[in-house]
Amino acid sequence: MSEEFMIEPKGDEFYMQLALREAVKAAEAGEVPIGAVIVKDERVIARSWNQVETLKDATAHAEMLALTSAQSVVGDWRLEGCTVYVTKEPCPMCAGALVHCRPDRVVFGIPDPKGGAAGGWINLLDSNPPLNHKCEMTSGVLQEECLAILQHFFREARAKKKAEKEARKQESSKDPS
Amino acid sequence: MSEEFMIEPKGDEFYMQLALREAVKAAEAGEVPIGAVIVKDERVIARSWNQVETLKDATAHAEMLALTSAQSVVGDWRLEGCTVYVTKEPCPMCAGALVHCRPDRVVFGIPDPKGGAAGGWINLLDSNPPLNHKCEMTSGVLQEECLAILQHFFREARAKKKAEKEARKQESSKDPS
Repeated sequence: MSEEFMIEPKGDEFYMQLALREAVKAAEAGEVPIGAVIVKDERVIARSWNQVETLKDATAHAEMLALTSAQSVVGDWRLEGCTVYVTKEPCPMCAGALVHCRPDRVVFGIPDPKGGAAGGWINLLDSNPPLNHKCEMTSGVLQEECLAILQHFFREARAKKKAEKEARKQESSKDPS
Repeated sequence: MSEEFMIEPKGDEFYMQLALREAVKAAEAGEVPIGAVIVKDERVIARSWNQVETLKDATAHAEMLALTSAQSVVGDWRLEGCTVYVTKEPCPMCAGALVHCRPDRVVFGIPDPKGGAAGGWINLLDSNPPLNHKCEMTSGVLQEECLAILQHFFREARAKKKAEKEARKQESSKDPS
């Protein structure tokens, strides 16, 4: 095959961009904007976004939904050969789930020193023993973009809350009683 | 109302017995026998058993399935006023999920010093901060019964594996080549 037809393998930034698209879907639905995709053999086999409020399920984080979807595609709970891309460092629940599902790699955008479980607060992905699997990790991929969408979401949420409070205040000052 | 008609509030052992029944269903399906029930206002609102192999989903632990089911019954991801009963100490994934779903209490049968995340190996249920919720915990309820069913399962699994190995050995010794 001549060199001009060679297909370059897509890198971490390409797949994190797809995870960011998922995060945008979350923001549009009023959810904390976190997105995830799962890749095997250069192919995206699952994608999802945080749906806690939409599904009224506190376990419906982007990673959890993507993991379940990927397992369904693969037909096995072992996600060997897979890489999970997620816009923010996984929480303890999601990191625990990642260890159970055994992907080769976990790549995330923003580290979370307060509550992250992939090296931020604790590290469940690299704690073998006692857990049964160890994932290779890469942090900081498209970190600025992943952070920007979260910051925008929380800024808007605060502004909305403030406006609602002001409106309630004005309403009660008009109250004739 | 005369005293003989007073209904005694059911205790932890009663509900753990129901979680054990779920564990039996898991064993019957060839799954590691762990069961869970979730109780609110003296009423069982969710019950489930470990279904990792059945659903080919490594996140399908008894607690995770019961939490999702309870949230669906309550119509909210906040499980305030709920108690989760599970036959074995939750793993990091399940403990992380419990913190997200905010039940008042978590009661378990067998402690797991190797990989438990409710005080055995680490403690995610009592780590506030940085996590957003703290669950009251009770360990060791019907511990012997919860352990017996697990031990029986693993003893049978080892015996089955050994028998299969023996059969393969005999088969290969018969091989005329």
